[in-house]
Amino acid sequence: MANHFCLLLIFTFVSVITLSSPLNGLSLSSSKLLPRFPRYTFQNRARIQQFRRDRNEYRYESKFFSQQLDHFSFADLPKFPQRYLINSDYWLGASALGPIFLYCGNEGDIEWFATNSGFIWDIAPKFGALLVFPEHRYYGESMPYGSMEEAYKNATTLSYLTTEQALADFAVFVTDLKRNLSAEACPVVLFGGSYGGMLAAWMRLKYPHIAIGALASSAPILQFEDIVPPETFYDIASNDFKRESSSCFNTIKDSWDAIIAEGQKENGLLQLTKTFHFCRVLNSTDDLSDWLDSAYSYLAMVDYPYPADFMMPLPGNPIREVCRKIDGAHSDASILDRIYAGISVYYNYTGNVDCFKLDDDPHGLDGWNWQACTEMVMPMSSNQENSMFPAYDFNYSSYKEECWNTFRVNPRPKWVTTEFGGHDIATTLKLFGSNIIFSNGLLDPWSGGSVLKNLSNTIVALVTKEGAHHLDLRPSTPEDPKWLVDQREAEIQLIQGWIETYRLEKEAKVSLLKRSW
Amino acid sequence: MANHFCLLLIFTFVSVITLSSPLNGLSLSSSKLLPRFPRYTFQNRARIQQFRRDRNEYRYESKFFSQQLDHFSFADLPKFPQRYLINSDYWLGASALGPIFLYCGNEGDIEWFATNSGFIWDIAPKFGALLVFPEHRYYGESMPYGSMEEAYKNATTLSYLTTEQALADFAVFVTDLKRNLSAEACPVVLFGGSYGGMLAAWMRLKYPHIAIGALASSAPILQFEDIVPPETFYDIASNDFKRESSSCFNTIKDSWDAIIAEGQKENGLLQLTKTFHFCRVLNSTDDLSDWLDSAYSYLAMVDYPYPADFMMPLPGNPIREVCRKIDGAHSDASILDRIYAGISVYYNYTGNVDCFKLDDDPHGLDGWNWQACTEMVMPMSSNQENSMFPAYDFNYSSYKEECWNTFRVNPRPKWVTTEFGGHDIATTLKLFGSNIIFSNGLLDPWSGGSVLKNLSNTIVALVTKEGAHHLDLRPSTPEDPKWLVDQREAEIQLIQGWIETYRLEKEAKVSLLKRSW
Repeated sequence: MANHFCLLLIFTFVSVITLSSPLNGLSLSSSKLLPRFPRYTFQNRARIQQFRRDRNEYRYESKFFSQQLDHFSFADLPKFPQRYLINSDYWLGASALGPIFLYCGNEGDIEWFATNSGFIWDIAPKFGALLVFPEHRYYGESMPYGSMEEAYKNATTLSYLTTEQALADFAVFVTDLKRNLSAEACPVVLFGGSYGGMLAAWMRLKYPHIAIGALASSAPILQFEDIVPPETFYDIASNDFKRESSSCFNTIKDSWDAIIAEGQKENGLLQLTKTFHFCRVLNSTDDLSDWLDSAYSYLAMVDYPYPADFMMPLPGNPIREVCRKIDGAHSDASILDRIYAGISVYYNYTGNVDCFKLDDDPHGLDGWNWQACTEMVMPMSSNQENSMFPAYDFNYSSYKEECWNTFRVNPRPKWVTTEFGGHDIATTLKLFGSNIIFSNGLLDPWSGGSVLKNLSNTIVALVTKEGAHHLDLRPSTPEDPKWLVDQREAEIQLIQGWIETYRLEKEAKVSLLKRSW
Repeated sequence: MANHFCLLLIFTFVSVITLSSPLNGLSLSSSKLLPRFPRYTFQNRARIQQFRRDRNEYRYESKFFSQQLDHFSFADLPKFPQRYLINSDYWLGASALGPIFLYCGNEGDIEWFATNSGFIWDIAPKFGALLVFPEHRYYGESMPYGSMEEAYKNATTLSYLTTEQALADFAVFVTDLKRNLSAEACPVVLFGGSYGGMLAAWMRLKYPHIAIGALASSAPILQFEDIVPPETFYDIASNDFKRESSSCFNTIKDSWDAIIAEGQKENGLLQLTKTFHFCRVLNSTDDLSDWLDSAYSYLAMVDYPYPADFMMPLPGNPIREVCRKIDGAHSDASILDRIYAGISVYYNYTGNVDCFKLDDDPHGLDGWNWQACTEMVMPMSSNQENSMFPAYDFNYSSYKEECWNTFRVNPRPKWVTTEFGGHDIATTLKLFGSNIIFSNGLLDPWSGGSVLKNLSNTIVALVTKEGAHHLDLRPSTPEDPKWLVDQREAEIQLIQGWIETYRLEKEAKVSLLKRSW
């Protein structure tokens, strides 16, 4: 097994960029090295439409804002159309200081995030909130240089795809929106999940004059440098399986060698192709292992307590179901048959798939890979002590080389902590900043890089033992367990508190002004 | 009198950029429209040397740090050498958590600021502090693209001269410095005066993980958009004269018309040239008026209670001296003779000048003009009600046009408040942020755009009625009035408090760690 293998697992669906891709001159031949969050795929697009039909409360207008490409220099660059979704059905209006809920669009089509953040829609009527979902630059329809092809052409055109620029986009966008609505005095509350949660937390810290608070759900803002151990992600994912069943955990742990052994046999790849029902013959056992371990990682992220359809249509407690299949196969089933039975819960829960394609994303182009190769360098390792994944030690030199080969760019691995902090965050934020909720579910492998303890009276952690990746942002359902209802209720109370305090301040100031007239 | 006239006064010493300047293709023909702080000139360079000889406590090494040109994009740009001055004579060292005092270099040669910020040198031994003075990009010797000529070539090469980039420079620089000194845990305290004070305050707000607090002296962070009335600067400057003598104020107020009337006579410009002892014949009365009103503005800034040599060698309470000359001329002296007698206190206190040159800066090239034409758009007007300066209403269209003509750049007048806040700062910072001192003297015309009230328990204003432009940052002298000694003592106490709190936090954490071992 290649020793860089285990790092690959969370970069699922990254296809090889072929010569037909718009990234002229760049090749992503062997780079699946980059960390990733749940990812928007073309399958999701169809599901967005379905969501919107099913839940007619997700009504929004799609609009575009003419956005500055580079906020931090005055180079003569073309503006680009930033898409945003907006719903004002519930808004109290400017004169009543109706709040503005702003979801910090992350690395994908904003419609996907908007339709998967039902919590915001659920609470909008209670708060009388205006909802806006600005899209992250270089994703969805928010493309600089006129098209995705031009925007992703090379390192120069991609160079403005950074987190700081995205935050400034949100700041400029919402400032302009408020001005147009004469809503300058209305409080803005930020929401975000995953990378979007990181954006929400960082935006509250960097732009306190723009937003009064942030709900940062599953936001691994500490997954940089050596702030948390690099093994944390895989350890947590592995533990999600182990807690369901040690035999399941062990079967998976043993399977990697079994796959290699099988692949080394004559016609081994053909046999593996058949065992796992791929549509085309495997090129290598690595392809199969990638396919499997990405599924395990995603399963850990979306190990929700009820059926959901975020990454894939899945049953409730999907890891339990996977392990049930792995453990429950008849006694003479091979280790690979067991793995296949288990993984089918993830890749084929609907039972509609005849054969599997390794690459489900015809584009393969990915802004997140660029971000991971520039700012979002999140070291990840897997060791044999606690992990069921193959051993891998993060190697920055290979990472850097891969990024250079792919994008002709050098990462700045220490930049995120210089710009946003992270080391000893408890000391820094104990006496600085306010109004951030870091919500996490401990089943989520990203929770290990997030903030799990209160940092001050107003920068707080809401942690659920049984929650997974930004579960709290999903719509309420009749199956919600009490701890989830409680977590959301705590969030609502805190947000309410921020808004009330803000309004009291404003009113005190207005009455002070009136008195002095 | 041209109606754009009055705005010119604070842009003293801006020379006409001729074709021989490195700004190829750009002309600054009629642009003295841009706001400015006390400015480094070549005369100052000689005085720096003198200072260093006189006060051998200003010992430092000059070093260079290889700095990123664009922190917020990944365009392939050359690094540039950022100069910094460093003194470790008093440093307690890393293991004792010795503090690092960082002066945020502003728009000029860093040696000028270092040698004019004696307060920092005075208190360094008491605190056991390491002193660092990083220079602001595009000033002094910190030139991108290899030379000032290349850096200032056009709008593209100048485009990275922004405040956000400068702050990121400081962040990257000090993070690297601390790493090299194994001083990661040492607290950094920021200092800055004028634009440097704005940088210090903004840096504490944007990089709380890098610096534990900031002393922002005479930092007009509210001098943007309509946050404060645009007349505030000239009203304060005028009042500094009026409080000394209403007749002095009135003489100056009447002088502008007298100058124009004189200029319109036959040989009027020649006569004015003689009256004011210029070396070369005046081209217009505007040139004379610019020369005068810039002197009045600077006098207001440096109206220190004892003799000082910041902009010019001056007596203590220089405005009192100017007015004494204006009022005390013999009874049949003309209004212009009186003005000449007064202004000589500013331009020729030493009595060594035979004739005056209108333009004392052979370069004329000015990064601050670029900054004023991009981010630092500070609207300034002068009205007849309280101002002794000619009437002028700020006109953004002309301002913008002037910037376009000069630099081929469009200002972003609303960007600073979007990026750094400013509107309703009291509400924003009441519950966000900590450890900033806004120190101001009310004689300083820039105090009108600064923070003059406590915003919270830890974001505080220290205001002196008799102080002028960042007087507190100057070295202590035997002539210091009690209110100045008190102000500095309050600053020392606050900084001491920040450091102690920080150390207690750190020690608590260390002992917690030890206990858990």
